[in-house]
This record gives sequence, C-alpha cells and structure tokens, in this order.
Amino acid sequence: MPTCDLCQQPGGTVVWQSAQCRVVRVDDPHYPGFCRVIWQAHVREMTDLAPADRETLMRVVFAVESVVRRLFAPDKINLASFGNMVPHVHWHIIPRWQDDRHFPDPVWGKVQREGSANRAIVSNAELAVAIAADLGASV
Amino acid sequence: MPTCDLCQQPGGTVVWQSAQCRVVRVDDPHYPGFCRVIWQAHVREMTDLAPADRETLMRVVFAVESVVRRLFAPDKINLASFGNMVPHVHWHIIPRWQDDRHFPDPVWGKVQREGSANRAIVSNAELAVAIAADLGASV
Repeated sequence: MPTCDLCQQPGGTVVWQSAQCRVVRVDDPHYPGFCRVIWQAHVREMTDLAPADRETLMRVVFAVESVVRRLFAPDKINLASFGNMVPHVHWHIIPRWQDDRHFPDPVWGKVQREGSANRAIVSNAELAVAIAADLGASV
Repeated sequence: MPTCDLCQQPGGTVVWQSAQCRVVRVDDPHYPGFCRVIWQAHVREMTDLAPADRETLMRVVFAVESVVRRLFAPDKINLASFGNMVPHVHWHIIPRWQDDRHFPDPVWGKVQREGSANRAIVSNAELAVAIAADLGASV
C-alpha cells in the first residue's frame, strides 16, 4: 500500500522476521527493550486476519514479551495494538519500570518525571539471537 | 488477592463469563462499546499464563472485537493490556471514531475535542447475547 508507512518502511531495526510478520526494535532511550511486531501484509484489524494467522502473530508477540522480560527485567509489560495513525496491524511490546518517564500512565500519557537511564544494555544482535532461540523453527 | 481491585470487584457490568475469564462493559459515554476482558485468577503478565490459557483469553478478546465492530461500527479498534495500576491481566477493547474525544491519540492521551455523542445505542443485554452467540460453547 503506497501510502502506508509500515508497508513502505521496516518501522525500526528488524531483529527477527518470517514471511508473515517481523519484529523491530524501537529506538527510544527511555524504553530500551521496546519492540513492535508488525504483520507483513497490509491488514487493518486483528479480526481481519484468519484465526490461525492471529494465533501466529500473538505467539510472536508473547515470545517477544518473554524475551524482553528476561533481558530487561521490567516491572511490567505493556501490550497494545492501536493503528489509529497507521491502520496496519502492529503490536507494541513495552517494558515499563516504576521509575520510567510515564509510569503508571501508558507511554502515550503525561510525562511524570525525567526517567532513569539505569537499564540493562542489550545489543540488537543479542536481542535477535534471544528471539530466534525462543521462536525456534515454529513460525 | 485482597488488595487487587479486579480480584475484589467485577470492574464493570459483566456481559459474559466463564470459569477462566469475564467480559465487562465499561461505563464511558464517549466510548459506548468499550469492554474489558479480565482473567479471573490473579495473574500479572500474559506470559505468566500457560500458552493454552493465553489462547483462550485472546479468543475471547477477538470475539469481543468482532462483536464491537459489528454493533458499534467504529473506524478503528484499539486493544491494550497494561496493568501498571492493577497488575492483574485484563484487556481493553476500545471502539474508536475519527470524531471521538482523543482520536488519533490513544484514549489515555490528550483530549482533542468534545467528541460526538452520535453512536449506536446497544443495551447490555444485546451486547451479552451477541458475545454469547460469537463464543458459543467453545470457551
């Protein structure tokens, strides 16, 4: 779709992908393990996907949640799929800490404080290896 | 869990439930089809649930999405699971319209306009019947 950002660009640094979906890392210094899982085809809503495709996508989302918990040790995980600006199915997987910039609001809420910079440092390569290990050959 | 709101209260008007999860309707005049799907047991993250339980929960979330699309004809569906305030797994299913109070921001963002009141009127009973029809006896 020529006018869709997620059809035209990866949307972040790709750390894993299959024919159906990709995982990108979002470059946000406040949320170092912030990833998105993006369906490759231009589909608007989760319920526009076939049930089996939804399951595949959610399996990837939960694999990323699991890896982000392990590597970044957040206090909480936030998951969201909005698409109000870019109506192309994509999931946000966001590690949250009680001393982060917006806690306990969602990251789209009001800035509450400067936010700590004291987080685990994990390279894109390490993140990519961890996700591939978690998803194995099943996707 | 005595200190958890979602262990102590339904969290809205219950329109469907099983032994594992419940669907509640949120009383928000700006978002008339806003529902939450709440896991009955006190579990913190999706990846603290067994994979089969995650699938069950997401099947209910997508059934609610499907019903809300049909009954309320929103421009977009927003899905989110945060739990920063109440770390007990629950999903928000929010119908969005381009002329609603926060569009295109998430509903936790800045108020953009008063918001239209011109939405479908659907009773709790109608919503309950539609969700039960969609989920059948499978959950």
